[in-house]
Amino acid sequence: MLRLVRGARSPRVRTPPVRSPPVRSPPVRARSAPAGPRPLGLLYERHGEPAAVLQLKDLEVPKLGDRDVHVKMLAAPINPADINMIQGTYPLLSPLPAVGGNEGVGEVLEVGPGVTALRPGDWVIPADAGLGTWRTRGVFPEELLLKVPGDIPVLCAATLSVNPCTAFRVLADFERLAPGDSVIQNGANSGVGQAVIQIARASGIRTINVVRDRPDLPKLVERLMALGADHVVTEEMLRKPEMKDIFKSTPRPRLALNCVGGKSTTEMLRHLQPKGTMVTYGGMAKQPVMVPVSAFIFRDVRLRGFWMTQWRKEHARDQQSVAAMMDALCQLIRRGQLTAPACTQVPLQDYRTALEASMKPFVSSKQILLL
Amino acid sequence: MLRLVRGARSPRVRTPPVRSPPVRSPPVRARSAPAGPRPLGLLYERHGEPAAVLQLKDLEVPKLGDRDVHVKMLAAPINPADINMIQGTYPLLSPLPAVGGNEGVGEVLEVGPGVTALRPGDWVIPADAGLGTWRTRGVFPEELLLKVPGDIPVLCAATLSVNPCTAFRVLADFERLAPGDSVIQNGANSGVGQAVIQIARASGIRTINVVRDRPDLPKLVERLMALGADHVVTEEMLRKPEMKDIFKSTPRPRLALNCVGGKSTTEMLRHLQPKGTMVTYGGMAKQPVMVPVSAFIFRDVRLRGFWMTQWRKEHARDQQSVAAMMDALCQLIRRGQLTAPACTQVPLQDYRTALEASMKPFVSSKQILLL
Repeated sequence: MLRLVRGARSPRVRTPPVRSPPVRSPPVRARSAPAGPRPLGLLYERHGEPAAVLQLKDLEVPKLGDRDVHVKMLAAPINPADINMIQGTYPLLSPLPAVGGNEGVGEVLEVGPGVTALRPGDWVIPADAGLGTWRTRGVFPEELLLKVPGDIPVLCAATLSVNPCTAFRVLADFERLAPGDSVIQNGANSGVGQAVIQIARASGIRTINVVRDRPDLPKLVERLMALGADHVVTEEMLRKPEMKDIFKSTPRPRLALNCVGGKSTTEMLRHLQPKGTMVTYGGMAKQPVMVPVSAFIFRDVRLRGFWMTQWRKEHARDQQSVAAMMDALCQLIRRGQLTAPACTQVPLQDYRTALEASMKPFVSSKQILLL
Repeated sequence: MLRLVRGARSPRVRTPPVRSPPVRSPPVRARSAPAGPRPLGLLYERHGEPAAVLQLKDLEVPKLGDRDVHVKMLAAPINPADINMIQGTYPLLSPLPAVGGNEGVGEVLEVGPGVTALRPGDWVIPADAGLGTWRTRGVFPEELLLKVPGDIPVLCAATLSVNPCTAFRVLADFERLAPGDSVIQNGANSGVGQAVIQIARASGIRTINVVRDRPDLPKLVERLMALGADHVVTEEMLRKPEMKDIFKSTPRPRLALNCVGGKSTTEMLRHLQPKGTMVTYGGMAKQPVMVPVSAFIFRDVRLRGFWMTQWRKEHARDQQSVAAMMDALCQLIRRGQLTAPACTQVPLQDYRTALEASMKPFVSSKQILLL
């Protein structure tokens, strides 16, 4: 069910100096509690390059409080935001010392007497950024966890809370799209990009997918088409008159999704319908978004941004919206309409290899720590 | 009541190739009807440089139809959009031959029997772009005209329908501003900029005004402060830590108004509140708007555009909104809270001098043809 794709990548952005308050994270202490075989975790006590500051250490498991949940972690990916957080360059930082990792899936071992929504055996994922998922076990307040069904593949559950949720929201929250409408996106082979293709296809929305040219382009095109892409074009093709052919069969997009920035974005914007919206959720080219003033004035295009972490913060008390999204995504997964991105599974002990692989440019596969 | 200001300027934009349908314009024929002393008008029969293609000609006054209005024009400005329209580079063109000019004020001489809202002696301004205001008299369908009160200065009436209306709408339509809130704008000494300062001041909204550095900066600052500006800063100052001092007394702006583009815009955007909106209505620097992706993702800024011509098109049947805006602006004018920009009044015969002056960079005064 999982496909190996090249260039699977997640939003990476050049960040401003950090000003935000630190995230809510469970307190972490290393080597202090005695009871039982201690869990292991990838801890950092100062910000810096992950290879230099991360250490695999025994962790204390704090006493299970009334509303706490003891979780055995199963799998956790390495995302670009995790790296930036350890480097101290992300606009959201955990109080130090901290366990790395913001995404992943675990199984509930035991729950405090005040916990009502979770039971031993349940699968859980982080409700928010900053949980510290790169550990074998942990005790977390119930409110920091979301239950997910245990009948979806573990790799889908481990990679559910960032990319598929981002894809779901950017498709849902900015333009009212109906079956037959179209969406254009760059970075289409990224984690979010692949989820966009699949979610859109399942909703009858057509996708125009922009990718960088590369030697094995036909293979990539084939792979994205197999996922459900309607059109796959290179950045260079965006400028060519042949683009018109696409719009003979597909309406001009009302929504553009941008995780690249720079020239690619300007070119993509040209094909947006008047009054259409472009949503920026990443900036892999490390270049600003550039828009001719005429696009604003004479075509009334609207530019917005999206950050899943901010959405979660604003919807922390809106259980209904969160549940509706998770239900929709899990249903797609069960039906085989939404698959996990290509993954390389690495035992926790080999974390250095996984970190290195995840930080290479043009990473072809998401690194998943097995816990 | 009118002040002479340097650098009064209107939105000027680099335009895409023309694709829009031509505007609704009254038909124009030169030297054909005999009755009475014929009106004069600045006619162009092909697109090109205004000095080369504009000719002062006798015009025919068509027979007054049932719902037509015969108007004696009083005064009409030369705006950058008029020039671009004659050059054929504006996204909105009149069918040829055409009389130049899109803004101005006239006095009603006579009305057709089906006209109910206008009477001889009333003052009227164009309801839309494309009227052809650079003429001494004309017969226009009633629906192309808007009545304005005759007790406001003629230069205010002649320059009411573009800049003050743009200023009114950008302040009203994008963010819900309350007294005490603030707005930041660049090109603050432009026609729209000055109107923004005055309308905001009258509404209790504070303005942070960005201008280009120049030898007589203190004079300009004084002039804008006299209009009601709360803060005037140069583009260079936007980058300096001293900007913080402003935000000790004034809240960070929820709305930014951009008629420049390029670097100035990027710098201005930095000071916008999270979730704030920047509206682009001009691009005098002839450079694109550049936005770091982090501003979209982590600060959730929203970028929009505005074009008065499009607003009029979309509100052609919404008499209430149009009337509310005109009433509000005319009230401000009567109270002395909204003044016309600096004007140089030129007899129609000297139109070549006026055209030349209007096309110079850093124009200091709006050229107004007296008709």
